[in-house]
Amino acid sequence: MGSPFDVTVAEMRRRTSLKWHTYPDDVLPAFVAEMDVQPLDAVVTAVTGAMLAGDTGYEVGPASPLGTAYAEAFAGFAARQHGWDVPVDRTRMVPDVMLGIVEVLGILSRPGDRVVISPPVYPPFRGFLEHAGRQVVTAPLAPDGRLDLAALDRAFAGASAYLLCHPHNPTGTLHTADELRAVGELAARHGVRVVADEIHAPLTVGDEPFVPTTTVIPDAISLHSASKAFNLAGLKAAVAVPGPAADDLARLPEIVGHGVSHVASIAHQAAHREGDAWLGDVRAAVRANGDLVEQTLAERLPQACWVRPAATYFAWLDVRAMPAVVSSGTDPARLLLLHGRLAVNSGPTFGPQGAGHVRLNLATSREILSDALDRLVTTLAARS
Amino acid sequence: MGSPFDVTVAEMRRRTSLKWHTYPDDVLPAFVAEMDVQPLDAVVTAVTGAMLAGDTGYEVGPASPLGTAYAEAFAGFAARQHGWDVPVDRTRMVPDVMLGIVEVLGILSRPGDRVVISPPVYPPFRGFLEHAGRQVVTAPLAPDGRLDLAALDRAFAGASAYLLCHPHNPTGTLHTADELRAVGELAARHGVRVVADEIHAPLTVGDEPFVPTTTVIPDAISLHSASKAFNLAGLKAAVAVPGPAADDLARLPEIVGHGVSHVASIAHQAAHREGDAWLGDVRAAVRANGDLVEQTLAERLPQACWVRPAATYFAWLDVRAMPAVVSSGTDPARLLLLHGRLAVNSGPTFGPQGAGHVRLNLATSREILSDALDRLVTTLAARS
Ligand SMILES: Cc1ncc(COP(=O)(O)O)c(C=O)c1O
Ligand SMILES: Cc1ncc(COP(=O)(O)O)c(C=O)c1O
Repeated sequence: MGSPFDVTVAEMRRRTSLKWHTYPDDVLPAFVAEMDVQPLDAVVTAVTGAMLAGDTGYEVGPASPLGTAYAEAFAGFAARQHGWDVPVDRTRMVPDVMLGIVEVLGILSRPGDRVVISPPVYPPFRGFLEHAGRQVVTAPLAPDGRLDLAALDRAFAGASAYLLCHPHNPTGTLHTADELRAVGELAARHGVRVVADEIHAPLTVGDEPFVPTTTVIPDAISLHSASKAFNLAGLKAAVAVPGPAADDLARLPEIVGHGVSHVASIAHQAAHREGDAWLGDVRAAVRANGDLVEQTLAERLPQACWVRPAATYFAWLDVRAMPAVVSSGTDPARLLLLHGRLAVNSGPTFGPQGAGHVRLNLATSREILSDALDRLVTTLAARS
Repeated sequence: MGSPFDVTVAEMRRRTSLKWHTYPDDVLPAFVAEMDVQPLDAVVTAVTGAMLAGDTGYEVGPASPLGTAYAEAFAGFAARQHGWDVPVDRTRMVPDVMLGIVEVLGILSRPGDRVVISPPVYPPFRGFLEHAGRQVVTAPLAPDGRLDLAALDRAFAGASAYLLCHPHNPTGTLHTADELRAVGELAARHGVRVVADEIHAPLTVGDEPFVPTTTVIPDAISLHSASKAFNLAGLKAAVAVPGPAADDLARLPEIVGHGVSHVASIAHQAAHREGDAWLGDVRAAVRANGDLVEQTLAERLPQACWVRPAATYFAWLDVRAMPAVVSSGTDPARLLLLHGRLAVNSGPTFGPQGAGHVRLNLATSREILSDALDRLVTTLAARS
């Protein structure tokens, strides 16, 4: 059985999306959350069928008999993958995860309000919140990548909402049921509402399960999408799922649904309905790629530290102790780009806690990952 | 040569988008801006190719060598269609037209500011503006469907921006260069910025040309997209085009581009590059359908008034004088749905000026349009 990551550089360069078209051709891209993956046949078939049929009009609204098609497909997937009973009729479609977060926070908080995030975290969290006029307050993760409850307790004082990243990007942390329960208690005590970005939920790559936030924090609202796990960032759609005690989505104006692309919805439905086996192969391949990173670092770059991700296809590497970083004092991502011709995500873009870190994308072929690791090791092991 | 509107009801019902899946099967849908049209081959080919290649990652950003691909394809189209020289490097991609309008108004005005619209107009104008915390002020069209300069002068006092609909939905009015010049002068006098929604621009169906707003009002910003003219509402993307004196788009944060779907961009590029002939057929077919409406109304419903649209595929019908409307005092769209099993857009949703009007969608086959006109005439000519 081939891996879905059996792709060549030549094939990747024929794609026209961001990953392979941001840097010159001698730079190997291992940044941005795109996978170098063969597409899922069911998605190709569904979208091709829609295009041939001219089925490119507006996504059906909640009033239509087909209005819950997306949520139903997602609910089936969530039941199989996470044993989670999604309340289909109470969900709402949104154009994508980030716009969904902004809309949900729009009903849970007001301009000027404080919203808490836990850096190092997906950089657009700050950008979108600030653009929405929210004040960003930080409760950084503990150094081991776990939620820091004491920091959250402090940050929640006077805040309206907490934007949780679960699984956490870039560390790949899966929050446990106990941690989520503690977050929920703190949030309740401070009158803070929890919004959980669960876009990476299907990408568990270890033995730990994903625990849906709303099953532990009843008034939380979570955001889900097929776009990350099925590499459909270019066909955006997402769904907001309220916990049993969150009645707020009814206050989302109808126009929020206008931004949803019907063809993206068709693609995501196919992925959620027929993607389990493909997803299983992707997760196995990410895990195997994690083994390669672990082995390579142990042998050739023992000063690098990392905690293997429980989810996501990222390796969040602490390379502060590497000779090239120590001697130059330069952001390692910059060293890697300039001297290794390797593009990774720069740690400090995830927050100051990311200094000396890089985020490496593991969702690629063995060959490409080996090349990336070679560039990484050679560059960082050098004394500049 | 067949018309692109040569479609059957059975084919349409196999589509899964809004138009054919909102009402029960015995209702003929002639509402919502979706076309009953055969897709443009170039779009089908481009999207199918992207799906097969797994080219479903993020849209390239402005920093990429491919970052202006969308704007370049649009600029070529705009040059051929409108003789317009689009400043490619100063444009910005946005997720869709309405989200683009909100973002552009976000930099031209502040929450609480007054923004002017000219009803009867596309209903979401009000919804999106209010959702963005703007105060909506109206300067209604004159009864003949033209801009009312005196009303605009009054409304502009104390306002920050004018959201112009050009061509105007639902009336199909094309504003002339003289009218646009007068709007620009009024706006300049009052310190009002003009944002022009030009999504219907390619759909001119008479002899009048479309005059791009920014060629007459140098500090205006316009929004364009292939989604309306090429029936791609389900693959959303759009571009904001600044006039020569509008430097504001540089202030749009980078994250605004995150919402763009790469596959939608691919579809729109194909439409803009290779869609001229198909579009010409669509416009001719809309025109011919307009002839059928004119003839049918003249023969069978002479009390109905309408001004033939210069653009768009809508017929905005004033049916206030019809027997069924006069005797029942009911919204004609409701009469048509209940008694004619015909779904049209209800006039009052476009503003109170739309009372007694309905918007009928002309982008369909002769057979479907004939059926729709039969239902319309029979229902409205009856005395209830
Ligand atoms: C945590 C997280 N949220 C959201 C997104 C983006 O989602 P969308 O494109 O649906 O806004 C990403 C993409 O990598 C992500 O990692
Ligand atoms: C005037 C006008 N603007 C905007 C839109 C919707 O555009 P989008 O889906 O890109 O927001 C429509 C759709 O019919 C429209 O008529």
